[in-house]
Amino acid sequence: MTVYTAGDIADMEKRFRANFINSISGFKSANLIGTVNQNGETNLAVFSSVVHIGADPPLIGFIMRPISVERHTYQNIISKGLYTINALPFAMKKDGHKTSAKFHDGASEFDETAFSARMNDFGVPVVAESAVALTCELRSDQLLEVNKTRLIIGEIKEVQLNPTFLQSDGFYDLAKAGVTVISGMDSYHSAEDGIRFSYAKPDQEITTLTE
Amino acid sequence: MTVYTAGDIADMEKRFRANFINSISGFKSANLIGTVNQNGETNLAVFSSVVHIGADPPLIGFIMRPISVERHTYQNIISKGLYTINALPFAMKKDGHKTSAKFHDGASEFDETAFSARMNDFGVPVVAESAVALTCELRSDQLLEVNKTRLIIGEIKEVQLNPTFLQSDGFYDLAKAGVTVISGMDSYHSAEDGIRFSYAKPDQEITTLTE
Repeated sequence: MTVYTAGDIADMEKRFRANFINSISGFKSANLIGTVNQNGETNLAVFSSVVHIGADPPLIGFIMRPISVERHTYQNIISKGLYTINALPFAMKKDGHKTSAKFHDGASEFDETAFSARMNDFGVPVVAESAVALTCELRSDQLLEVNKTRLIIGEIKEVQLNPTFLQSDGFYDLAKAGVTVISGMDSYHSAEDGIRFSYAKPDQEITTLTE
Repeated sequence: MTVYTAGDIADMEKRFRANFINSISGFKSANLIGTVNQNGETNLAVFSSVVHIGADPPLIGFIMRPISVERHTYQNIISKGLYTINALPFAMKKDGHKTSAKFHDGASEFDETAFSARMNDFGVPVVAESAVALTCELRSDQLLEVNKTRLIIGEIKEVQLNPTFLQSDGFYDLAKAGVTVISGMDSYHSAEDGIRFSYAKPDQEITTLTE
């Protein structure tokens, strides 16, 4: 085992440190956030920081980098109050990565990639190719003082999914649905079939759940 | 595709909704958080909500459920100001899941599972079996008003990892290191080898990075 101190990390070359710190915290979700601006122009961007906040009410968060440059996703979420979070299909991982490019103003990632926008009843674009798409209403936009990033929290107002992958107890099988896993800043993975365990109790053997 | 409205979600049976909402937001990291109380007793608990906050300074966050019941991990982090975040080895997934059981007071998960504690120079337990372990210093403890969960942010003070899986540009290969992916509340996955893409630019073909 190798040990890196805080000093070692501070001394790392900037890009090396970004790769290092972004990968050591573990695997991450791969979601495309879909938004629309006041002119009706759509935007789509890949995010790996989506995090579960709560089930009742159904709340979901993600981290937005500092608003020191123009950030379409953020501006659109604030102006519209609604957005979509769409699972990235592993078969379209390269298109997902491509949404991180800085396209010129007025260019929609939906035109620049193979993703198709379906405008839903809330007036926000759902990724038609996604195996699970959530329409969210902005509930909280919190500045994190530690580094000026923001925690954006939304309440899930609509879920669109492929029922083939929904199990009888509410578990949605992301592995079978072909949803992507991200690690670091640029590594895209598929996941093997999962093993589900029974609710853990102190003096009870844990068993494997099967559908 | 099936569509669920906010009303459909509100009407779901409690456990079904928990499985449903916890799985639709995407894959999650599997980390064991190691702490110690004022009597020197260790604690270890699995968390799937660890999220990257920033690389410079190196900051990492996770969501803590409401402190309406006794939560050893939280109490220990507040009293000590230091804790460890350890990647869960896929080979030990059942032990990882077992740390979620409510053991009686005074019982350490390090005794109840196969994980070994190595007390480091900061006086907090590192999981010896983990391919990457981070020692964090508490930087921020923020109540999220939307549902009374908390966002805990720490600064990485030390990293211990297996250098075999560290690439020359700082990327740490979690898939080769055998680190676990979680989905939903109880599903444990391994990840296939990742495909790394070059930095995305508007008018440039994305290429595959190889070590």
